[in-house]
Amino acid sequence: MRRIRLVVAYDGTNYCGWQIQPNGITVEEVLNRTICKMTGEAIAVIGASRTDSGVHAMGNVAVFDTESTIPPERFSYALNQRLPDDIVIVSSDEVPADWHPRYRNCEKTYEYHILNTRIPVPTKRLTNYFVSFPLDEKKMQQAAEYLKGEHDFVSFCNVRTDVEDTVRTITALDVLRNGEEITVRITGNGFLYNMVRIIVGTLIRVGRGFYEPEQVREILEAKNRKAAGVTAPPQGLMLVRIDYGEGREASEGTD
Amino acid sequence: MRRIRLVVAYDGTNYCGWQIQPNGITVEEVLNRTICKMTGEAIAVIGASRTDSGVHAMGNVAVFDTESTIPPERFSYALNQRLPDDIVIVSSDEVPADWHPRYRNCEKTYEYHILNTRIPVPTKRLTNYFVSFPLDEKKMQQAAEYLKGEHDFVSFCNVRTDVEDTVRTITALDVLRNGEEITVRITGNGFLYNMVRIIVGTLIRVGRGFYEPEQVREILEAKNRKAAGVTAPPQGLMLVRIDYGEGREASEGTD
Repeated sequence: MRRIRLVVAYDGTNYCGWQIQPNGITVEEVLNRTICKMTGEAIAVIGASRTDSGVHAMGNVAVFDTESTIPPERFSYALNQRLPDDIVIVSSDEVPADWHPRYRNCEKTYEYHILNTRIPVPTKRLTNYFVSFPLDEKKMQQAAEYLKGEHDFVSFCNVRTDVEDTVRTITALDVLRNGEEITVRITGNGFLYNMVRIIVGTLIRVGRGFYEPEQVREILEAKNRKAAGVTAPPQGLMLVRIDYGEGREASEGTD
Repeated sequence: MRRIRLVVAYDGTNYCGWQIQPNGITVEEVLNRTICKMTGEAIAVIGASRTDSGVHAMGNVAVFDTESTIPPERFSYALNQRLPDDIVIVSSDEVPADWHPRYRNCEKTYEYHILNTRIPVPTKRLTNYFVSFPLDEKKMQQAAEYLKGEHDFVSFCNVRTDVEDTVRTITALDVLRNGEEITVRITGNGFLYNMVRIIVGTLIRVGRGFYEPEQVREILEAKNRKAAGVTAPPQGLMLVRIDYGEGREASEGTD
C-alpha cells in the first residue's frame, strides 16, 4: 500500500466546493470516481482544504492510498487523461503512509481577485469580484498591516460549531493593483471559515472609504463577527499554494 | 425613429457565435430578444463583427432603430439590468440613421491569448489556448513583421464563397510575453474569415521552431491556405475594439 499525494488545480465554477455533499457534484467526488475507475480500488481522497462552492484552486493538496503499481509521478498524467477539463492534477508523488494533508504544519497562500472597473468584463466574471466604486489600494494596504501577525480572528469567522481556537497567524498580506485589477494575496498557517473572504470584504470597505484603516484594529479587538465587513463572494478566491515546508513545496510547478 | 449604437462585451463560451443560426443560441439573438422585450418593438440589431462560436469580445459594435424615448446613453444601463451576466453593454449612443457598423472604414483590434505552461490552468481554459511546448516569442515577432502592411491574405483565409477581394492591411501586430502568457495583438482594416486564428496558428508553428520566421513571407506568396498553419482554437480570441476614426472611439470606455 502506498500513499500518493496530488496537487490539484480546478475551476470551482461548476462544483459545489471540494467536499462531498448530497446536493451537487464536488471536486472530491469527481477525483474519487476517476481514481476508482482507473485503479479498480475503492478510493477516498483526503483533501487539505475544503474550498467552498465557486472557489478556485491552483494548488490544493490531496492524498489517497493505493495498491496500484502505477509509478507515483505518473498518476498526474494518467488522471489528467480522464478528468474533466476543469480539474487538473499539477503533480503527483509518494509520501509516507502517515503523511496527512490537514494535520501538519503548513502555510497556505490565497489570492483574491477584484476587478475595479466602471463596467464589468464578462470573461472575468467567474474569477473576479467586480467592484465599480473606486478603491484606494493604498488605504487597503494600510488596513492590511493591522491583520498581519498572530491574532484572534474570531471577528473574521462565520459561525461554525467545530472551531475552538480562533487564533491564527498571517505571515503576509499584500494588496496589489495592476491597472484595473486588484489582487489581495494572503499567506498564513491556517484560516478560519470564510476568513479570507471576510478580510477582503472588510478591506473593500476601507478601500471605498467607509472605514478608516485604523478601524481594522478595533474590528480585531471587538471579537465580534458583526464588527467586520461582509463576506466577499466566492468566485474571486483562489487557493494558490500549500507549502508544507519540506524543502520541496507540495505545489512545485504551479507557478 | 433613432439609430442607437451599442458597444457590446461578451463571454462567447456559452454562445454559438454572434450571428443568429438555427442550431444554438447566439449573442445577436439574445440582444434582439432583450431589446424587443424592453421597447415592445420588433427589433433586429446589425452587428459589426460576426464572431465565431467561443470567441469573446470587449468591444463589438451593433446598431438598431427604435421609436423608444429612452435617452440613448441610458440604453446600456437599462439593457444591462435585463441581459444575462455573460453579455454586457459597455456604452450606448445615438448615431445618424445611415450609420452602418460594417460598411464603414474602421480598424479592428483583436487579442489572442496563449497560455504557455507545462500544465494547463483550469480557470484560464475558456479564455486562453494552452500550449505546453516552449514558444519563442522573439521568433514569433520576427515572423509577424512579414505580415504587417497590405497583402493578399488568401493563404490565411478559410474557404468561404462570399469573399472576392482578399487584400487586407495589418497596421499593427505584436507578440507580447508576460510570464507564461503570450498575447498576440493585431490591428487591421478588416479580416478574412478565420484570418486572425490562422495567423496565430502559423506564428505558433514559428514559435515552436517548425517554421523559420522568413517562411511566413513564402506562405503569403504561396496564396494557398495549405501553406499556412492550422486555425488556432476560438477560445483564445478576443475582439478588443473597433475604431471608426470619428474622433471618439466607438468602444470608448472599454479600457
